[in-house]
Amino acid sequence: MSGFRNRSTVSEAWTWLDSFLEAVSTDVETIPIEQSYGRCLASPVISQIDVPGFDRSAMDGYAVLADETTGASEYNPIRLSIIGQSMPGAGYARVLAKSQAVRIMTGAPLPQGANAVVPVEYTTADGEEVLVTTTVGQDKHIGRVGEDIKAGSTILQPGRRLRPQDVAVIASIGNDEVKVRRQPRVRILVTGNELVRAGQEKLPHQIYEANSSILLGTVPRDGGVIESIQFVEDKETAISAALKSPGADVILVSGGSSVGAEDFAPGLVAQLGELPVHGIAMRPSSPTGMGRIGESLVVLLPGNPVSCLCAYDFFASRAIRRLAGERTDWAYQSKEFPLGKKIVSAIGRVDYCRMKIENEVAIPLAISGASILSSTTRADGFVIVPSESEGLPAGANVNVMLYG
Amino acid sequence: MSGFRNRSTVSEAWTWLDSFLEAVSTDVETIPIEQSYGRCLASPVISQIDVPGFDRSAMDGYAVLADETTGASEYNPIRLSIIGQSMPGAGYARVLAKSQAVRIMTGAPLPQGANAVVPVEYTTADGEEVLVTTTVGQDKHIGRVGEDIKAGSTILQPGRRLRPQDVAVIASIGNDEVKVRRQPRVRILVTGNELVRAGQEKLPHQIYEANSSILLGTVPRDGGVIESIQFVEDKETAISAALKSPGADVILVSGGSSVGAEDFAPGLVAQLGELPVHGIAMRPSSPTGMGRIGESLVVLLPGNPVSCLCAYDFFASRAIRRLAGERTDWAYQSKEFPLGKKIVSAIGRVDYCRMKIENEVAIPLAISGASILSSTTRADGFVIVPSESEGLPAGANVNVMLYG
Repeated sequence: MSGFRNRSTVSEAWTWLDSFLEAVSTDVETIPIEQSYGRCLASPVISQIDVPGFDRSAMDGYAVLADETTGASEYNPIRLSIIGQSMPGAGYARVLAKSQAVRIMTGAPLPQGANAVVPVEYTTADGEEVLVTTTVGQDKHIGRVGEDIKAGSTILQPGRRLRPQDVAVIASIGNDEVKVRRQPRVRILVTGNELVRAGQEKLPHQIYEANSSILLGTVPRDGGVIESIQFVEDKETAISAALKSPGADVILVSGGSSVGAEDFAPGLVAQLGELPVHGIAMRPSSPTGMGRIGESLVVLLPGNPVSCLCAYDFFASRAIRRLAGERTDWAYQSKEFPLGKKIVSAIGRVDYCRMKIENEVAIPLAISGASILSSTTRADGFVIVPSESEGLPAGANVNVMLYG
Repeated sequence: MSGFRNRSTVSEAWTWLDSFLEAVSTDVETIPIEQSYGRCLASPVISQIDVPGFDRSAMDGYAVLADETTGASEYNPIRLSIIGQSMPGAGYARVLAKSQAVRIMTGAPLPQGANAVVPVEYTTADGEEVLVTTTVGQDKHIGRVGEDIKAGSTILQPGRRLRPQDVAVIASIGNDEVKVRRQPRVRILVTGNELVRAGQEKLPHQIYEANSSILLGTVPRDGGVIESIQFVEDKETAISAALKSPGADVILVSGGSSVGAEDFAPGLVAQLGELPVHGIAMRPSSPTGMGRIGESLVVLLPGNPVSCLCAYDFFASRAIRRLAGERTDWAYQSKEFPLGKKIVSAIGRVDYCRMKIENEVAIPLAISGASILSSTTRADGFVIVPSESEGLPAGANVNVMLYG
């Protein structure tokens, strides 16, 4: 048991992490488009086809020769003979000639010979004839071949996180699979002899375990997939075995990350691989560690739940998001608010201040304890006070990372 | 085949929808906390216990009597005898007396008699004694019973969409289940004889179906669960059967929503239930319909994919989010940007303008076609031009709903 001798700064910790992430190999995989929402595209999507593949009507109405409608109005309707119809997926087989019209539905192929569509609102059917009451110009209400997507064009660039409409565009060019970055496999190891799982009986000196509930929510949010979650005894052999077993891209260890008598994980990571970061100049989450065992990143998260959440967001979230192909390092949207009350910090230390937003003003929550998990549910977000700052005065504009 | 005679305004359509949603019954269900991320809480969460349930140390160090450290410094260390240790989950059984210290770990129970903790950084162990080199005040580095959560207190209010830390707080009070709003069951019916599914061979007059890929992404995003997805022939009997079968809270019909010859769904909904909204004064998505069959909401979405997405976001998303317990009607974050180029609209019509954000300026995309799905992948979001506006001048500040 001893204090941290040399803490890393947050930016030193990020520098180590980023160079680890750059060096590590990343895989891609081909998956069905139905499973691709939110996944990161690994290669450009190039269309092999024109969309649409044929000229089509953009309205329900009548396909006509535009010239023939010149001068048509309610008072001067033009009469054309209806020679057939074009339905979506079917079309009209013959060629439209002068004085003729083909009944047509939205999305149906434009008959050969026609060069405009009169919307149904401007027509009156009269047996086998139709009265046209408006003038339409050439190409009016027609979608031409390739108007949406041209064959050979790149429709999506790699690195994009796929939205519903992106997946729809991929479907629209006929692809039912897509190449995406493989999701990082994340192993969660929860340690702490004082912990009992929710739903079980608890002895007086025990507490209910909460950190796994943070991590089971944040890891999938960031694009990781849970390889396993293990509740490990605070024993060197048990933790060592859980660290050494292959199969994880990222190992998150909750608890036992500091320099206490039962904090085995730091020594084990240093022994099985390397632990270049242990102890970080930040509050909370000072007892955070980062290292590697082979190709696996190991992040040692403090057992205090607020520290666990904070260290996760500063380091593990960044790692998992980048491995998943994300371009943003934070999971949160941020917004500027004026500060309602000063924040006191210290030079050389990064502070994570939980904030409440009230009437568009950011109010720091009056709690400092890393163990007060309920503060993160009362808070709407947090402000990061940088290392070079002694604090922020009331009225200053601050960038609040919003939890919601 | 005929034009829309009377279009509803968007606000009339919302009024009908909102009154439907208020009248419809909502269910709650109790689920394991691991499945509750993103779900909406249905009743307050009240703690039955104090968290922590005992006084505990917030640091690794030594539990002491605060008074005895008065005046201690590096130059004037105070010597205490180490009489034992308190470990997390175990504790120290006896009472600490004068001149004594108990080695203690973060999270471990404070021994009886002690009233402060000296962090290990300010101590030097010397055999069975410890030298304390700092003064600590009473209660320093101690977390008292209930400091996080007091028994009887309400920790989360109904209506809240559960974040990872909320689930963790629920776990920390020992609950492994939580009462949430049931997710609305959404049936997706895709019609259109011209459609072929991605991955299959396509005839010249066919197009690849894209709307199901929009809806399979947006429905879960909004908190709905897909009851079924059915590709239905454009035949009255087939559509009628798919509409009538029980089990869905919301039925989304893609395609055939207008007044064309093969647009069967509107007539069927009117006949099987009611269709108070058909045709909406907006662009795109004018051929949108809304009604009910029994307790099921039916939204008729235009077949054009941009219209489908737009009508989904204006009406179906609002419905699904509210049924799921969400308080916000839009799935998107919005942000203000100056407009880089004017937008032309018409009084009496709501416009959905796709925008690109370039150098913090919102640029309207130069496309009008409701069939140009790729415009929604090129766009970063959209601006809603209200019904009472003829358009917006360049330079005006606009609220952009961001897709990303």
